[in-house]
Amino acid sequence: MTTTNVGILIFDGVEVLDFAGPFEVFSRARLTPGVESRRSDDDAPFNVFTVAKYHDEVVATGGLRVIPEYSFSDAPSIDLLLVPGGFGTRPLLDDTETLEWIRATAARASRVTSVCTGALLLAKIGLLEQRRATTHWSALALLKSIAPTATVESEPRFVDDVVVSSAGVSAGIDMALYVVAQMHGEDVAADTARYMDYRRDGDGGCSRKAPPSP
Amino acid sequence: MTTTNVGILIFDGVEVLDFAGPFEVFSRARLTPGVESRRSDDDAPFNVFTVAKYHDEVVATGGLRVIPEYSFSDAPSIDLLLVPGGFGTRPLLDDTETLEWIRATAARASRVTSVCTGALLLAKIGLLEQRRATTHWSALALLKSIAPTATVESEPRFVDDVVVSSAGVSAGIDMALYVVAQMHGEDVAADTARYMDYRRDGDGGCSRKAPPSP
Repeated sequence: MTTTNVGILIFDGVEVLDFAGPFEVFSRARLTPGVESRRSDDDAPFNVFTVAKYHDEVVATGGLRVIPEYSFSDAPSIDLLLVPGGFGTRPLLDDTETLEWIRATAARASRVTSVCTGALLLAKIGLLEQRRATTHWSALALLKSIAPTATVESEPRFVDDVVVSSAGVSAGIDMALYVVAQMHGEDVAADTARYMDYRRDGDGGCSRKAPPSP
Repeated sequence: MTTTNVGILIFDGVEVLDFAGPFEVFSRARLTPGVESRRSDDDAPFNVFTVAKYHDEVVATGGLRVIPEYSFSDAPSIDLLLVPGGFGTRPLLDDTETLEWIRATAARASRVTSVCTGALLLAKIGLLEQRRATTHWSALALLKSIAPTATVESEPRFVDDVVVSSAGVSAGIDMALYVVAQMHGEDVAADTARYMDYRRDGDGGCSRKAPPSP
């Protein structure tokens, strides 16, 4: 089985549930349903890890202290990049090294995703121009100001238009389950949600309509 | 304002969302609605921290590496104890030091809560005898075997019978929002859920019926 490397960017001021929700979904997905398959990684389609600029401890919102698995300089290749949000995204909008890492990693990844205000960072490096996208409800106007040609959607839990962006915080769970379903089928996503006792809203409210003409 | 000390037990093999969901809820609750109040802790009714047996890094399910804020020996007094679950609870069922810490901390706390299979640890020290309680759907029978006089409920997202226990993984978010509502009113809980873009099911499915006669 080929496993997908899921790299989750973390940074000081990252919102806890923004990264922990998708971390839970991707790391607990199994191709065999039920609970027993979760006792090992044998049947895990994703290899999930955190990445930060340095190896130092990262302090998330509320003070949760996380040790990144990798730094920018030693992270393995990333197939699926996830950029979470939080107030800590604001200083990163001016952090050349982080933006350049996201740009280079996104260029090599087969899927690029964001949760909440993580979309601001993708917007900043131009990935959302002429795309539909969403973010936390409080940052919709800010997202539009950073990506003027993007169509910023306020209703869906997440939007899939090359980049998959989700609404605020907990919407990252729905977005991650949607990506699991895309890659491994609805049964695997539904079983992962069931394991997590998570109640999805239908298909998660994904907006899949055709993008507007440029 | 008096803040409530929320101590979240963490241990190797703790399920990520079991502790991260309630951590998010309690640490992001604010008495003033909106987003701006979340930029500081000035208006935060809860002081949330992780506690582990030692100060060493804890490895959660999927490999998330967390540095506990406190160890058993130096944790401040805990008003609200939260015991999360995960496969890592099983070895703790025989870990005298951890069970004794939970027992002593629960005895001094004004509220004791569990998420998922964290209920097994509360059962082990006798806190669920003659109480209604719940746990992850896969561990209902195991919970009953550890707490023979407990009424183990399979339907609710969480059960409040002195101890507040929640169903699996993501149900801890609903349980935490319920506790926020209990302590600070429904408006504060609803605003916290809105900040998190979290969709609660009505009152979260809490079971509040009278306990059976002993």
